[in-house]
Amino acid sequence: MHITSKITSKNNDMVKLYSALSASASKRRSLHLFVIEGRRLCHEAYLSGIKIEAMFYTPEFCSKYSSSAEEIAARAENVYETTEDILKKIADTVTPQGIVCICRRPEHDIKSVKFGGFYIALENVSDPSNIGAIARSAAAFNYDGIMLTRGSADIYSPKALRASMGALLRLPVIEFIGIEKILETCRKSGITSYAGVVSRDAENIYDVDFSGGTLIMVGNEGHGLSTAAINGAEHKIFIPMSAKTESLNAAAAASIMMWESRKKSFI
Amino acid sequence: MHITSKITSKNNDMVKLYSALSASASKRRSLHLFVIEGRRLCHEAYLSGIKIEAMFYTPEFCSKYSSSAEEIAARAENVYETTEDILKKIADTVTPQGIVCICRRPEHDIKSVKFGGFYIALENVSDPSNIGAIARSAAAFNYDGIMLTRGSADIYSPKALRASMGALLRLPVIEFIGIEKILETCRKSGITSYAGVVSRDAENIYDVDFSGGTLIMVGNEGHGLSTAAINGAEHKIFIPMSAKTESLNAAAAASIMMWESRKKSFI
Repeated sequence: MHITSKITSKNNDMVKLYSALSASASKRRSLHLFVIEGRRLCHEAYLSGIKIEAMFYTPEFCSKYSSSAEEIAARAENVYETTEDILKKIADTVTPQGIVCICRRPEHDIKSVKFGGFYIALENVSDPSNIGAIARSAAAFNYDGIMLTRGSADIYSPKALRASMGALLRLPVIEFIGIEKILETCRKSGITSYAGVVSRDAENIYDVDFSGGTLIMVGNEGHGLSTAAINGAEHKIFIPMSAKTESLNAAAAASIMMWESRKKSFI
Repeated sequence: MHITSKITSKNNDMVKLYSALSASASKRRSLHLFVIEGRRLCHEAYLSGIKIEAMFYTPEFCSKYSSSAEEIAARAENVYETTEDILKKIADTVTPQGIVCICRRPEHDIKSVKFGGFYIALENVSDPSNIGAIARSAAAFNYDGIMLTRGSADIYSPKALRASMGALLRLPVIEFIGIEKILETCRKSGITSYAGVVSRDAENIYDVDFSGGTLIMVGNEGHGLSTAAINGAEHKIFIPMSAKTESLNAAAAASIMMWESRKKSFI
């Protein structure tokens, strides 16, 4: 395995860059980089073709998982051997399992939207665990990608990536300025838009016919979808529930709607 | 409003008790107490008939939400006026909104299980946010309660209670030593058991007829259900998904299964 260098001090510049990227969403955004930790996510990045700028590993990881280490290293621009102690200091997880990477953010733009595809739009969803769980369901139900408004939490945060179990590395994520631009893009791409709302005046999800391209929109955990999203959608849909309950967790609601829209393809 | 006393020091014994209960699951368990924070949860405790041992509020809360403060205080054993500063120091949330309570754990035992009812069983589910989200879906889909093995995370943790948006205060939660006892109880109570698994050899959830009493079992986030749960269940069911995906988030999977089991009741 080609090793660029050994890192033995946490004052090393690459280590400091890692820490900064792990802690700061604005740093990740401005440098177009993010970090991943542990064997599973690093291997997923390798499989997905994500560009790996730097790989840091411990000799223990390399001797335990030599083929995995070789594969990831072969795709990394820079490879650093370091210590468990340093990894523990810089990692977001308590046990980074001997491997972490700095990766380049994939840039998917409007042109990559698939005509007649299935997309989930997140409007200002703020909890990274919810974003991760939604991405996992989207990948499970063969969605083509995630559309995201700028007000949402950073999908490349360590917490969201972990909660997604790698789905955020596999699925195209397209960022938009706001929900209006998402709706406009879908109108031009043969994709019908559905706003998930809590009103019982909307269409019962049980009766909705999701037969063509589909955009399901999910709003902020506290405030739901904006008026622009609700008024701009071709359909308003709701998940029927007990009159005593107001709403579901955002990831639970998104998962149920995505399941309903795709379940017939699994019969 | 009847005020027992004013608390101006964080060294007050009741304040120390609150902090200990907020931080420690074993303390909550041994004293049969738990804590809730914010107007929504405290009001929910009042509505649910949960016994409120102590209420702590700020004068600002009382002047802003006087009727809510009066209602909760009328049901509290002890009422303490305190300061925003002290609440911020003891609360798990950053903004406790001027009100927190110490409550008694409701004790629901096997005898409270409803014949032919709908229950969700959590076997060693470890993430409090997942437990909260599952409780929220269970309440939304008119489930009769939650059955829980002792290896699961504490449902009365501040995080789980918050994530449940109060559903954990409304739904009966019955704790069992292990899954075998849950299965035995259900067999005697006209409740059919379903183990949620990832194997494609199981019954496709799309085809399952949930017409009578139903127990859906969900396992640990990392390991799934135990062999005892899978072998003991009358049915093994799975949510069909992309071959590239292994599984869903535990709360997403539980929510989809509960939705499927109840959706016909909402037509």
